[in-house]
Amino acid sequence: MLQNQTILRIPGPTPIPPSVQRAMQQPMIGHRDPETAELLKSIQPGMQQIFGTKQVVSVVAGSGTSGLEAAVVNTVAPGDKVIVCVTGAFGERFAAICKSYQIETIILEEVWGEPVNPKKLEQLLHENPDSAAVFITYCETSTSVLNPIAELSELIHSQSNALVIVDGVSCIGGVELEMDQWKLDVVVTGSQKAFMLPGGLMFVAFSDDARQKMNANPRPRFYLDLLKYEKAAQEFSTPFTPATSLLYGLQEVMQLMKEETLESVFKRHLQLRDMTRAALRALNLELLAGDAFASPTVTAFLTPGIEAKQVRKQLSERFGIRIAGGQGHQKDTVLRIGHMGYCSATDVLLIISALEVVLTDLGHVFEAGQGTVAAQKALIGGNVHV
Amino acid sequence: MLQNQTILRIPGPTPIPPSVQRAMQQPMIGHRDPETAELLKSIQPGMQQIFGTKQVVSVVAGSGTSGLEAAVVNTVAPGDKVIVCVTGAFGERFAAICKSYQIETIILEEVWGEPVNPKKLEQLLHENPDSAAVFITYCETSTSVLNPIAELSELIHSQSNALVIVDGVSCIGGVELEMDQWKLDVVVTGSQKAFMLPGGLMFVAFSDDARQKMNANPRPRFYLDLLKYEKAAQEFSTPFTPATSLLYGLQEVMQLMKEETLESVFKRHLQLRDMTRAALRALNLELLAGDAFASPTVTAFLTPGIEAKQVRKQLSERFGIRIAGGQGHQKDTVLRIGHMGYCSATDVLLIISALEVVLTDLGHVFEAGQGTVAAQKALIGGNVHV
Repeated sequence: MLQNQTILRIPGPTPIPPSVQRAMQQPMIGHRDPETAELLKSIQPGMQQIFGTKQVVSVVAGSGTSGLEAAVVNTVAPGDKVIVCVTGAFGERFAAICKSYQIETIILEEVWGEPVNPKKLEQLLHENPDSAAVFITYCETSTSVLNPIAELSELIHSQSNALVIVDGVSCIGGVELEMDQWKLDVVVTGSQKAFMLPGGLMFVAFSDDARQKMNANPRPRFYLDLLKYEKAAQEFSTPFTPATSLLYGLQEVMQLMKEETLESVFKRHLQLRDMTRAALRALNLELLAGDAFASPTVTAFLTPGIEAKQVRKQLSERFGIRIAGGQGHQKDTVLRIGHMGYCSATDVLLIISALEVVLTDLGHVFEAGQGTVAAQKALIGGNVHV
Repeated sequence: MLQNQTILRIPGPTPIPPSVQRAMQQPMIGHRDPETAELLKSIQPGMQQIFGTKQVVSVVAGSGTSGLEAAVVNTVAPGDKVIVCVTGAFGERFAAICKSYQIETIILEEVWGEPVNPKKLEQLLHENPDSAAVFITYCETSTSVLNPIAELSELIHSQSNALVIVDGVSCIGGVELEMDQWKLDVVVTGSQKAFMLPGGLMFVAFSDDARQKMNANPRPRFYLDLLKYEKAAQEFSTPFTPATSLLYGLQEVMQLMKEETLESVFKRHLQLRDMTRAALRALNLELLAGDAFASPTVTAFLTPGIEAKQVRKQLSERFGIRIAGGQGHQKDTVLRIGHMGYCSATDVLLIISALEVVLTDLGHVFEAGQGTVAAQKALIGGNVHV
């Protein structure tokens, strides 16, 4: 195969735009020098717009999981009880973190591929009126379900005093988020998904209520003490040495999103989702998530009659296209295409065409070219499913 | 001033070598794909050589402080008592972390500029024979003291069962380290100092005794659970999404150090120290650390009779040379020159010459050119102080 031709379409990391690559090449600066303050200052407005918040968005050197843990250790005091909504592998991670801290954890579990059922959540809140927090995954990367966090947040606040804590790692930057309006108390995400950056940065913002809880929470924490980051960020600084090259990249990402406009970024992701889903359906493949809760950033599907791992292997070996397998118990049965961040309609047409070749070779039954036609129609029609 | 001409000589981050910059521009790869395993595998031998260990050296997305906290939460069980040697700001940080976890913390405090006094440590060990761990800073960045960790480790092991835990952030990669031979139990460092990389990576290795302690330690931890990293590293993987661009940079750093040879890298750092110290003395400036404990990576000094911050300001404004101020109570009285990582004799000659101009301008009394001459002599003579 053509040397090093790799087309990365896993649900993160995503490819890096050329101008972001260039931005990350800038010479080092002192992290206590004015240049770093300027850099952090320039990033803040764009981050706040993406989060839909007037709160400070802190930038932390760490991966997404450090953000999930930060959300737990800062807001959940010893003795608190929490509810964790588990709709896939990353809901499980929230639960694992809570359990590792010996927190009384009520699990709301859904079949992988389904979103959180509001009725079940209401019932759990009714049974556990003293819950201190409810943890929800916005986009469950493992299943490509986008949970209805605005609706769930409204429900939670109407039924309890629990904080609403959201893992938005695999979608924020690619989908609508109105943290303040939706009354989300802690929102966490990472750099290597819709933010089009390498891994290594975690972003987090929190509400006034969450801050109050953090101030009163005696649970020990140091590196992940979010109050330290917020305080430093107010002075355009960081409590510990930042990952400066990634900050330069983030600055350029903010510029790219501003040029495209956030509205167009979100619309593009919806279109990529609709193209992908229409094509996979036309190829007689099975979508894991229903239309009403399908994430704009990733699509998980099954390949009835053929081995999922063979599809993945051939896409990689013949075309250099990397897609992901499933997670957990779906490791061998599910495939996932990431269409987030630095990804366009062009990229989806390419993947679908290559996928048709591979499926034909593996003896899968479908009408030749119909995946491509369906993707094209979704593109031409622009009938974006919102 | 010439646009963007910045010569970064703070004690980290250091400038990035051009080939390392280029290495970090490689297209993203999947963190669960074989390319990442190959990358991690290629890094391991060089890291083990630098650490002087047969143990796995784990690579974590986080800054140096995340490593200090990891060292604490993994090895110190609830109820344990520890001794923290404080010789400056980073010893204080170890103590702050221990205290934030409500750990009984015995402080061995030295005047800033002095190393740990072995007699005082022996006394404390005698008084606290049940200490679970002793925390030591190898190079105390704030004072430029290199603590005699080999000697201190021998003392600790001869007097107690305490683990020896070392913060090597601002020197590892630039100075000798024999973790196994010196019986160090946990050693932590970061990417933005002698490793010539941007901030964002933390490196850590631990002994069999430390592993045993970690396995038995019920203290909760998740993102910073070092056993998770070691287990994953044995399969050339990471438990959470890595900071891939920095890993590519690290791979190139391993190559650069291999080409130069570690022996030459360490010798170069000793030479840079000796040049810097000889020059500062010849300029009638006062060195904070004595010769016997002077770090090869950073030099802290005082400017009797003139304002330290004026020196720093003029070096920056007239020459684009950035040096650091002091930390904590020495903020306004101490200056620090970083001479680690991507730094050569050429760079030191440049700094000293510029410093002479600034000192002259500020009315400091010294014999013109004698700083430069002293640095040159230290270079020519090669009379490296070991």
